[in-house]
Amino acid sequence: MPQTGKPEPLPPGSTIGILGGGQLGRMLALAAARLGLKTHVYSDESESCAFYVASETTRASFRDPKELAKFARRCDAVTFEFENVPDETVRELMQHVPVAPGPEPLRIAQDRFLEKSFLQQKGLLTAPFHNVASESQAREAFTALAGPAVLKTRRLGYDGKGQRIVKTAEDAARAFAELGGVPSILEGFVEFAFETSVIAARGQDGAFAAYDPALNEHEHHILRRSTVPSGLPEKKVQEAFAMARRIAEALNYIGVLGVELFVTKDLRLLVNEIAPRVHNSGHWTLEGCAVSQFEQHIRAVAGWPLGDPARHSNAVMRNIIGAEVEDWKQLAGRAGLHLYGKRVARPGRKMGHVTTISPGE
Amino acid sequence: MPQTGKPEPLPPGSTIGILGGGQLGRMLALAAARLGLKTHVYSDESESCAFYVASETTRASFRDPKELAKFARRCDAVTFEFENVPDETVRELMQHVPVAPGPEPLRIAQDRFLEKSFLQQKGLLTAPFHNVASESQAREAFTALAGPAVLKTRRLGYDGKGQRIVKTAEDAARAFAELGGVPSILEGFVEFAFETSVIAARGQDGAFAAYDPALNEHEHHILRRSTVPSGLPEKKVQEAFAMARRIAEALNYIGVLGVELFVTKDLRLLVNEIAPRVHNSGHWTLEGCAVSQFEQHIRAVAGWPLGDPARHSNAVMRNIIGAEVEDWKQLAGRAGLHLYGKRVARPGRKMGHVTTISPGE
Repeated sequence: MPQTGKPEPLPPGSTIGILGGGQLGRMLALAAARLGLKTHVYSDESESCAFYVASETTRASFRDPKELAKFARRCDAVTFEFENVPDETVRELMQHVPVAPGPEPLRIAQDRFLEKSFLQQKGLLTAPFHNVASESQAREAFTALAGPAVLKTRRLGYDGKGQRIVKTAEDAARAFAELGGVPSILEGFVEFAFETSVIAARGQDGAFAAYDPALNEHEHHILRRSTVPSGLPEKKVQEAFAMARRIAEALNYIGVLGVELFVTKDLRLLVNEIAPRVHNSGHWTLEGCAVSQFEQHIRAVAGWPLGDPARHSNAVMRNIIGAEVEDWKQLAGRAGLHLYGKRVARPGRKMGHVTTISPGE
Repeated sequence: MPQTGKPEPLPPGSTIGILGGGQLGRMLALAAARLGLKTHVYSDESESCAFYVASETTRASFRDPKELAKFARRCDAVTFEFENVPDETVRELMQHVPVAPGPEPLRIAQDRFLEKSFLQQKGLLTAPFHNVASESQAREAFTALAGPAVLKTRRLGYDGKGQRIVKTAEDAARAFAELGGVPSILEGFVEFAFETSVIAARGQDGAFAAYDPALNEHEHHILRRSTVPSGLPEKKVQEAFAMARRIAEALNYIGVLGVELFVTKDLRLLVNEIAPRVHNSGHWTLEGCAVSQFEQHIRAVAGWPLGDPARHSNAVMRNIIGAEVEDWKQLAGRAGLHLYGKRVARPGRKMGHVTTISPGE
C-alpha cells in the first residue's frame, strides 16, 4: 500500500478486487458499483453469492500463484471480505497491486494470541488469557485464571467454532485434545452486561471515522440482532471510538474494521476481537446512514475521502439464519430486507438480514 | 402478465430480465440484488453500464427474435428501463415470459398523441394539444391554440429532443418540416409555477403506493435538481396521488411509473407526460426512503408486496451531467454520490447524481 504522501484516488471505472465471495463481498461489490467502480471477485467456492453482482469473477484456489497474479494485474486495488486469507496469498498479490487493509492487520486478526497480546501492548483491556500449547499448559492456565474459562483455537475460529467452555482444569485439558491439540488460548470468562461493537474506518490520508456503536445480541454464538443506539453513555462511546482509533493507527490500517467489545456492569470496555473487514454488526448502516460501512470500506481502499458516518435514524438489524429464509414470503413484506442469494440454507448460515429504521434522536 | 387472482411471488434466486443497459437498468439490477434476485440485462449497446452489475448479459438487437427468445427463456419476468422498446420486442418476449408493466403502458407512453388523448379521456388535465400530420395542420393547430406553442414529435423525444418552440403559424409549419415531417403534436404553452412529479407503483395484487412528489428544476430541458418536499400543499399532493392512481389503474399497470406534472399559479395540476418506468426524479428515494423506487419496481415485477414509500428524510438530488463528472475528485467527498460507470461524458449525458438528505419533517 502506498502509505506516504497524499493518496491518489482511483478514478471511476477502476477495478477493486475482492477476495472472498460471500455476503460481505457481495455488499462491497454493490457499494463499489454505486461509486462507478468495477469489482472483480475472487473466490475458491463455485457457489459464491458475490459472483452475481461483480463485473468480473475468478474461481480459483487462494494458493494458485498464477491465478492470483492474473487477478492482481486486472485490479487497481485489492481487499478481502474475510480474515482468514492465507499470508502467502497477500504476499503474492502485493507484488502486483496494493492490498488493503494489508498483511499486518491480517496477521494479528488471524491469531487470537497475537491479537490479544497486541491489544494489551497498546494499553487496551481484554479478557485475561494464556497461551495453550499442550494439555498440561491447559491445566496450568485454568489454575492461573481461577474461574470458568473458554478454550479457543488461536486460528480459524468464527461464530463459536473452535471454542469450548471449561469449568475444571481437567475440562481444559480435554477441550484442548478435542479441538485437535492445535495452538490455543484459554480466556477467563468475562461477566459482561452486554456486547457492543465499533465499526470504524481509516482512510489512506489517515482520516478516521466511526459509526455509532450497536448493541449486539447473539444466539448460539451467532449474531442475532444489532440495535443502534446501543444505550452506551456518550462518554463511553467516545472511549470506544478512541480504542478503535488506537488499533487502526497502530496497524496503519486502511479500510473498515470491526472492534467487538464487552461492556461490564461497571462500564469497563474490554476488546473481544478485531475483524479486519466490514462487519455483520454494521449492516444497519445501509439503511441508517448516508454512507454505509460497505461504501466506507471501498472509499478507503480506493483512496477516496471517507464519508460522513452520521446516522439519520435509529436502527435494528436482525439476521436471517439458516432455514428462517424459507419464510421469504413473509419476509418479502418487510422494508430493509436483504437476501444474499445463497442457494443452500444450512443451519447457522447467514442467509440475509432485515433492518428496521425509526426516526433518530 | 398474470393479472388475475393472487399473484405468486417469484422466489429468491429468480432472474429478472431488464431491457436496456443504462443507469436506470443498473440501479434496478442493484436493487434486485438486495432482494436476492438475479438480473439479466439485454442491451443493444456494447458499452452498457448496467452490464457491470448484472448476473447475466446479452448484447443483441431488440429486433432479433432468436436472441429475444433465448433471453426470455432464461428469465422469470422481464421489465424495461426505457419506454421506446419496440412493440414487436415486447410481443416476442410475451410468448415466453411475463413482461411488466406490459404493452399497453408502452403503447400509450411512446406516442404523445395517444398519451394526451388517454389522459383527457380519463378526466385528467393536460396542456391543450392538436395532432399535426402536415404543414397545413401545423398552421391550423397554431391558430386554434392562439398563443405560443411547442411542436413535439409524437414518438422518440426525450430531454428536449424532437421539440421546437413556435411563436407563429409559419414557425409551426417550419418546425414540422425541420423535425422531419413526422407525426407530431402542437401543444399550447403552459404557464406553470413549477414542475413536480409523482413516482408511484402498482403491484400485481392491485396495491398502490406513491412517494412524496419532488419539485423538479430543469436546465436545457434536462433535469437538474429534484427537491423533496416539493412545497405542494398536502391536499394537492393527495390530488396528484389520485391522478397517478387513476392512470395506473386504467392501464392495469404493474411496476413503477413517473407522472410529470405542471403546477399552475392557481395550483391546477396538468399532466405533462407519463414515464412507464423508474424516473430520474425518484432517485432521491435511494437515500430518503427505506424502500427505493428501484426496489419498489422490482418488487412489483417479481409479484412481491410493495414496500412502504414513506420517506425518513428531506432530500435534494442533483444530476451530474456531461463533463461535470470530470470533477469526480471533488464529488468523491460527498455522501449520497452515485456514478453510473459510463466511459464517455458526452454533453447532456447523465453521468451520475448526488443526493443530500437532511432530517425529515
